[in-house]
Amino acid sequence: MNEINSGKPEKTFEVILQPIGRRITVPQGFTILDAARLAGVELVAICGGEGVCGTCRVRVVEGKLSELNLSEEGELSDDDIKKGFRLACQAEILGDLQIDIPPESFTTPQRLQLEGQEIPTELDPPVTGLDVSVSPANLADLRSDLSRLRSAIPAANQADFHVNLKVTASLPGCLRSTNGNVRLALRKHELVSILPIGSPLFGLAVDIGTTKLAAYLINLETGETAAKAGAMNPQIAYGEDVISRILYANEHVDGAKTLQSRLVETLNNLLADLSREVNIHPDQVVEAVMVGNTAMHHLFAGLPVRQLGESPYVAAVGEAMDFIGRDIGLQMAEGAYVYMPPNIAGYVGADHVAMLLGADLSQVNQTTIALDIGTNTEISLFHNGKHYCCSCASGPAFEGAHIHSGMRAAPGAIERVKIDGAEVRIQTIGDAAAVGICGSGILDVVAELLKSGLLDRRGVLKGDHPALRMEEKNTQFVLVPAERTGIGKDVCVSRQDVNEIQLAKAAIRAGVEVLLAEAGIVDDDIESFIVAGAFGTYLDIGSAVQIGMFPDIPRQRYQQVGNAAGGGARKLLVSQHQRLVADAFARNVKYVELATHPDFMKIYVKALSFA
Amino acid sequence: MNEINSGKPEKTFEVILQPIGRRITVPQGFTILDAARLAGVELVAICGGEGVCGTCRVRVVEGKLSELNLSEEGELSDDDIKKGFRLACQAEILGDLQIDIPPESFTTPQRLQLEGQEIPTELDPPVTGLDVSVSPANLADLRSDLSRLRSAIPAANQADFHVNLKVTASLPGCLRSTNGNVRLALRKHELVSILPIGSPLFGLAVDIGTTKLAAYLINLETGETAAKAGAMNPQIAYGEDVISRILYANEHVDGAKTLQSRLVETLNNLLADLSREVNIHPDQVVEAVMVGNTAMHHLFAGLPVRQLGESPYVAAVGEAMDFIGRDIGLQMAEGAYVYMPPNIAGYVGADHVAMLLGADLSQVNQTTIALDIGTNTEISLFHNGKHYCCSCASGPAFEGAHIHSGMRAAPGAIERVKIDGAEVRIQTIGDAAAVGICGSGILDVVAELLKSGLLDRRGVLKGDHPALRMEEKNTQFVLVPAERTGIGKDVCVSRQDVNEIQLAKAAIRAGVEVLLAEAGIVDDDIESFIVAGAFGTYLDIGSAVQIGMFPDIPRQRYQQVGNAAGGGARKLLVSQHQRLVADAFARNVKYVELATHPDFMKIYVKALSFA
Repeated sequence: MNEINSGKPEKTFEVILQPIGRRITVPQGFTILDAARLAGVELVAICGGEGVCGTCRVRVVEGKLSELNLSEEGELSDDDIKKGFRLACQAEILGDLQIDIPPESFTTPQRLQLEGQEIPTELDPPVTGLDVSVSPANLADLRSDLSRLRSAIPAANQADFHVNLKVTASLPGCLRSTNGNVRLALRKHELVSILPIGSPLFGLAVDIGTTKLAAYLINLETGETAAKAGAMNPQIAYGEDVISRILYANEHVDGAKTLQSRLVETLNNLLADLSREVNIHPDQVVEAVMVGNTAMHHLFAGLPVRQLGESPYVAAVGEAMDFIGRDIGLQMAEGAYVYMPPNIAGYVGADHVAMLLGADLSQVNQTTIALDIGTNTEISLFHNGKHYCCSCASGPAFEGAHIHSGMRAAPGAIERVKIDGAEVRIQTIGDAAAVGICGSGILDVVAELLKSGLLDRRGVLKGDHPALRMEEKNTQFVLVPAERTGIGKDVCVSRQDVNEIQLAKAAIRAGVEVLLAEAGIVDDDIESFIVAGAFGTYLDIGSAVQIGMFPDIPRQRYQQVGNAAGGGARKLLVSQHQRLVADAFARNVKYVELATHPDFMKIYVKALSFA
Repeated sequence: MNEINSGKPEKTFEVILQPIGRRITVPQGFTILDAARLAGVELVAICGGEGVCGTCRVRVVEGKLSELNLSEEGELSDDDIKKGFRLACQAEILGDLQIDIPPESFTTPQRLQLEGQEIPTELDPPVTGLDVSVSPANLADLRSDLSRLRSAIPAANQADFHVNLKVTASLPGCLRSTNGNVRLALRKHELVSILPIGSPLFGLAVDIGTTKLAAYLINLETGETAAKAGAMNPQIAYGEDVISRILYANEHVDGAKTLQSRLVETLNNLLADLSREVNIHPDQVVEAVMVGNTAMHHLFAGLPVRQLGESPYVAAVGEAMDFIGRDIGLQMAEGAYVYMPPNIAGYVGADHVAMLLGADLSQVNQTTIALDIGTNTEISLFHNGKHYCCSCASGPAFEGAHIHSGMRAAPGAIERVKIDGAEVRIQTIGDAAAVGICGSGILDVVAELLKSGLLDRRGVLKGDHPALRMEEKNTQFVLVPAERTGIGKDVCVSRQDVNEIQLAKAAIRAGVEVLLAEAGIVDDDIESFIVAGAFGTYLDIGSAVQIGMFPDIPRQRYQQVGNAAGGGARKLLVSQHQRLVADAFARNVKYVELATHPDFMKIYVKALSFA
C-alpha cells in the first residue's frame, strides 16, 4: 500500500526563508534543509546533512519544529540555542515556519550593492589626529592626568578642549602604556579617542537599507575606502518593509529596542570584520556616518517611530544629528560620534539626501530628476535653481513581494527576460536554475509582453503564445516550466503580478509628473534623469520606458549611478563641507506632499494605463 | 558529661557585621542573628527568629553558612537569593563570615549626618524651566517634532539650542500626551528634560562619604531642601577605607564596576525615596551635584583608581566635571547632568572643595584653618589672601577601626567619657547598653586618662585605678565591665588603642603645623579653626586640645560646622556662581605634599608625644 492510497491527507506547511524572502510549501516531515533545497536556496551543509558539521545553522523566527536532537545539542553553542538557532538538516518542520538564514550558511553570497559611483570630494574630515607627548606624573608634578594632557597640547588646541567621561576613563591606562606618547583623535575641540602615537584614523560609512546594509571603512587621512562589506538588514526577520517594522515596534514590548539591537549587532559584526581585514583596532574608528530612510534612521538612533506610522507621518527629528556611537552600543572608539544627515520628511529620509550628495547634485544646473526606487520611491527634481522633492508609495513589487514567483535579487532569480516569438529567453543571477523572478526580471517581462502584444493597455494578458496559460480568473505567462526550474514548479507571471507592477509604475511616474507640474515643465525638459540604488542599477531603462514608468526621453539622458547613497555617506564621512551641503539640501528643498496634492490622483490614474 | 569536658575543642569564627564595622567571635552553630545579638547589633526579627517573617534579611559578602533551608526559600525572593541574601535567624555560621546588613534590617537607624550649616546662597541654578506651547503636526505642517519645538521657543533661546539623542527620543511621546504644552528644563542651551507644563524642577545633592551618604532633594526654583535622607555607602562591604576600595577595584575583575554599580543602586534608591516623599517624578530631577574624596569621586564616575593607589598618587581628573547621569545609570531626568566640583589632589578631593564652600570660606579674611577628619584628613589654611592645603594619613582609628572595642557611631557606641576619680561615666548613642566605643568616645578616654595622670606623655597607661587592668604587654582601661555591656564582655581601651590615637592625632597636628610653617605663622595666629564633618561635630574640642590633636588656642575660635561638604554640594546645585568659586579654590590653592616636605617628619615625631 503506497502512501497516496493510504487515504491519509498529507499535511503541508508554508515556509518563509529570510532574508531572501523566498516562500515554499512543504509536506510534513521535511527538514529545513529539504525545504531550502526545494525552494532552490542553497545552504552550506558540508557533511551532506548528517548533522555533524554544524554549517547549516539557521535561526528560527517563528514556527514549530521537532525537538532539539543530540546532533544539534552537540553542534550548537548554548548561546546559539538561546538565540533560536537550529541545524537545517536536523530540524523537521511541524508547522508553518519562518527562518532567518545567516550569511555564512548561504553557499552563494547575496547580491549586495557596494559599488556606486566614487566621486572625489575634498578631504576635510571632522576628526583629525594630533600627536603629543605627555609628561609623566611625579612627586614634583602631581597634576591630574587630564591636566598634564591638557598642557601637552598646542595652545591653539587648548581653548574649548574637552573630553567626555568615558574617554577620560581610558586616559590613565593609555598614558601609562604608551609612556605618554599618544595620538589624540580630535573632533574639533573634543577628544574622541586616545591611541598610540601615529595610529591612522578610520571612519565607518553605512547605508542602512530596509533590506540591505552596505558598510565602508574609510581612511580619514587619505579618503580611501580601505575595506567594504555588505549584509542583509537583520530587521527583515521582523517585517519586510518599513510599515511592518513600524508596526512591529509599536505592537511589541521593547519592539523598537529589539529592532535597534539586532541592527547594531550586525553593524558591530561588519565593523569587526572590516577592522580585521585592514588590521586595525576598533578604537581607530573615530567617526561614523549612517544614512537610511526616516524609519531606518529613527530605529537605528532609538527615536520613536509611532508617529511615522500615523497621519500626518512626521519625523521626530529632521535636522542632522550627532551622537556618540557607544550610547547606542556601536563598538567603535569610546568617544566616536555617529553623524546622520537630515531627513527631509517622514518618507524622504537621510538616505535620499546622501543619494543627492553621492550623485553630486549640489551644484547641478541642468534640469535633473534623481530617484531611488524602493517600497517608497523618493524623487527629486532640480530645475532653475529650485529643488522639489516627493515620496511615492511604489510598493514592494520590485523587491519580489506580492509577486507570484517573486523573490529578491539572489542566485536563481530571473533578472532579464526576452520574448522572441515563441521563445522565452531568460537570464538568472549566478546562471543558476531559475527559482523565481526579481524586480528587473518582472519589469522586463511586462515590457516584453507589451511589445509582443500579449498585454493590453489595461494590463490584461491575452493573445496566443505557447507560454500563455489561461487559468480561472488569473491568466499566467510561464517563463520557465517546472521541469527546468530549481524548484519543481513553474516560474510564471500572472495577471495579478502585472497589476502589481501597474500600481508601482503608476506611482513612480505620477511622482515625476507632479514634480514637473510643480516646476511648470514637461517630460522633454528633463536634461538628466538619474536612477540610483540597487534595483535602479539592474533595471533595463528601455523596459522602464516601455511600461511607462519612466518618461520617453532620449536614452542618453538616463544615468544609472548605483548605490549613490553609500557614496554620499562616504563623502559625508570625510568632509565637513559636505555636511553643510546636506543641511542646505534639507533647508532649501520644496517638499511636495502627494497625498494632499490636488492633481496627484488624476495623474496617477492616467499613469496606471500602459499607454 | 558537659560540653567542656567532652575534650572536643570548640571551633570559633570571626564575624564582621557591615556596614557598621562591628567584629565578633562566635562559636560554631550560632546563627547570624545570634552573632548580631552577641555583638549588640539589633536586627529586626519580628517573628522572634522563627524564620517566618523575612525581616532579618542580610547579605553575605563572604564566608561559609549552612545550606539555604525551606524557611529561607519561602521568605526570600529568587532575586534576593541570587544576590546572596539570607535570613539571619536561619543561617548558621560555619566559617569566618562577613555580612552586610541592609538599612531596613536594623532596628535603630544609624547616625547619619544630614544637617550641617545651611548658608544661604544666591539662586542661580544651572537648569531653568521654560514653558512653551508646541503646535501639532498636520498636513499643512509636516515639520519634524524637533523643528516644531524649536520654533515654539523664544528667539533668545533658539541660538545654540540643542537636545541629546535620548531626550529627543522622549519628545514625540511627550508632545502628544501633553497636547504640546510642555515645560522645557534647559541647561543653558541644552534641553535636559521635557515635562508637563508648569512642573517644578528639582536637583539632587549628595555627599558621597567613604562610610556614609547624605542626599538632599532641592527645589531649584526656591533653593529649599524639600527632603533629605542618609544611607551607608554600600561599598563598605568591599573595603572599609579608601585604600582597601582601591585594592578591591584593582584586584577583582570588574571590581571598579561593582563598586560603582552598588553605589549608583543605593543612590537610585535614595532618589526614589526622596522623590516619593515630595511626590515628584524622577524626570523632574534635572541636575545633580556629587561630592566625595578623590577615590569616591573616581569610583562614582567610573574613572580608574589604580593611579590613586600608586606613588605619586595622582587623580585622573582634577578639574570640575559635567556628565549625563544616565550614562552611569543614575535614574533622574533622561538628559540631566551630574556636576562634580574639582579635586585638588589625589588625596584632597572634591568633598574638601565643597566643605570650603559650605563653610563659606571663599571671601574669608581671617586666618583660618578648616579641616574634615577622616581616614585621610584634609586641611586648608587661609592666611593673608593665600590658601594652603594638605592631606594627612590620620588613619581609621576615629572610625573605630584598629581599636579593640572600636565601632562606628551606631547605637550602643560610647560617645562620651568622663573619669571622675574612681568613677568612669559614659554616654552611649541611643542610651543603649554599651557595645563598643566610637571616635568621639575614644578621644574623650585618652584625654581623660591624660588629665587623670593615668597616661604618660609617651602613651603608657600607668598608676592606680580600679578600671586599670594590667595584662601581659597590653594594659587595659575598662570602661564598662562585661556584665553591664550589651555583648557580655568588657568594653575597654588598651595601650595599643592609645598608640593608634597617638598616630592619628600626630598626623593631624603635624598637617596643621606644616601649613602654619608654610605661611610663616604660629598657632596663636589662627583666628578661626573650623572643624567639619560627622566626627568633627561630635568630638569634644577640649579633649582634642587636651591630647594635642588641635592647638591650644582660645576655645571660641573653634567652630564645629557639621556636614559642610553636604552644604557645599547644595550650594553648588543651585548656583552657577558657586561653581566658579569652586574652580577658583582649586586653581588658586597651594597644595603642600607632606610626603616630600622637608620638615614634616620632625614635626610629626614631635606631635606623637602627649606633651
